[in-house]
Amino acid sequence: MESIVGNVFDPGCPTRKVLDRVGDRWTVLVVSTLLDAGTCRFTELRNRIGGVTPKVLTQTLRGLERDGLVTRTVYAQVPPRVDYRLTPLGQGLDKLIAAIRDWAEDHIGEVVAAQHEYDAATSAT
Amino acid sequence: MESIVGNVFDPGCPTRKVLDRVGDRWTVLVVSTLLDAGTCRFTELRNRIGGVTPKVLTQTLRGLERDGLVTRTVYAQVPPRVDYRLTPLGQGLDKLIAAIRDWAEDHIGEVVAAQHEYDAATSAT
Repeated sequence: MESIVGNVFDPGCPTRKVLDRVGDRWTVLVVSTLLDAGTCRFTELRNRIGGVTPKVLTQTLRGLERDGLVTRTVYAQVPPRVDYRLTPLGQGLDKLIAAIRDWAEDHIGEVVAAQHEYDAATSAT
Repeated sequence: MESIVGNVFDPGCPTRKVLDRVGDRWTVLVVSTLLDAGTCRFTELRNRIGGVTPKVLTQTLRGLERDGLVTRTVYAQVPPRVDYRLTPLGQGLDKLIAAIRDWAEDHIGEVVAAQHEYDAATSAT
């Protein structure tokens, strides 16, 4: 295991990229789904996550796999079966992902009201 | 106050955009800085957040202001002074932002190790 002391305020620190990963909307949705379902095939993920394109879902899963958050298991059968599940590191995101999702769902009314007010004020002559 | 029941799995739901806002790396850094400092001028924010360009900082602050998370106060003096601070809604992000930052800083070693392993495996012939 590498020993890295992270500092998100340092532009050279790789934690910056981890911030992007954790905060990405599709990451939140994929990890939420896998936390709920345990193991999923590609089409199950695609059906559960409204509006995701196959390309974006593939990219998100590849990024999560590369970061050690998701494992991809290929079964040699016809047709081939591919399962996705969270690693222990990915499962450790559970509280964080729930907090992000809950904040978004709880405060959307306030945010949308603020946006309308801002847009009305900035479009006024 | 609008009453909206958020559902991040619905592609038409505005919570999708809130997910992007909360997770954006610059949002995390600006909100972290304002939580710590209370009130900041533009140049203070720029100095504290390594690597941010003036353009990106302006866009981030405008987005946060539009979402009702940050207030911008202009003082009529020469030279003009502009202060940024969190609204109560923005302050309510404190635990969430700390959790995102802490996760990124705590697990960066594991993520970087996983990335090296993945890259080595995928580049192998």
